[in-house]
Amino acid sequence: MAAELKQPIKRVGMVIGIREEKIETYKALHADDHPGVRDLLAKYHIHNFSIFLHKLDDGRYYEFAYYEYTGTDYEADMAALATEPRNREWLSLCDPMQVPLAGETTWAVMERVYYNP
Amino acid sequence: MAAELKQPIKRVGMVIGIREEKIETYKALHADDHPGVRDLLAKYHIHNFSIFLHKLDDGRYYEFAYYEYTGTDYEADMAALATEPRNREWLSLCDPMQVPLAGETTWAVMERVYYNP
Repeated sequence: MAAELKQPIKRVGMVIGIREEKIETYKALHADDHPGVRDLLAKYHIHNFSIFLHKLDDGRYYEFAYYEYTGTDYEADMAALATEPRNREWLSLCDPMQVPLAGETTWAVMERVYYNP
Repeated sequence: MAAELKQPIKRVGMVIGIREEKIETYKALHADDHPGVRDLLAKYHIHNFSIFLHKLDDGRYYEFAYYEYTGTDYEADMAALATEPRNREWLSLCDPMQVPLAGETTWAVMERVYYNP
């Protein structure tokens, strides 16, 4: 009869480079009216997902992502998402547009140092 | 009798450099148990505010901020927040720890290229 223990929301920030010549294509794939893998993100409890773009002082463009994970088993959900054929297909489109940081193979997860509701 | 028109939430992403030797002090000021200007953020409708930290390939550290503005007059609220004495005092502590991008005097506002609820 007791309510399930509610997990706190996990807030994730990530960073990756993007090739300047691919920015317009990337934006079109991520436009509000493009379905992409939006349904799969929801299936695996990934919500309130924003991606921002900015040119830094090294002259290169970077993407910064923020999302909230509302499920109860982050590792299992991320592993399951990674095996979804449509997600693999999606990444095969997006990955070549992006430039992971040194030592990374995909988005680098950042350290969170502040939160205020 | 009609409900007020509800403004859509404005999602803001920002980036700025941080001096490596100031990171520990910055973290202490932004720790969960440090009041800072949390009350002023709420007063001016700034919510769900996260700051992330990461070292990029130029060897420098950067901060990435995400917040949601839930009010109805963003420009006016930001202008009012900027005049709050406690906010000015807070910025006088934080600003010297940070390194704005070229051409900026504070956090650079990034372009949002994706959103999924």
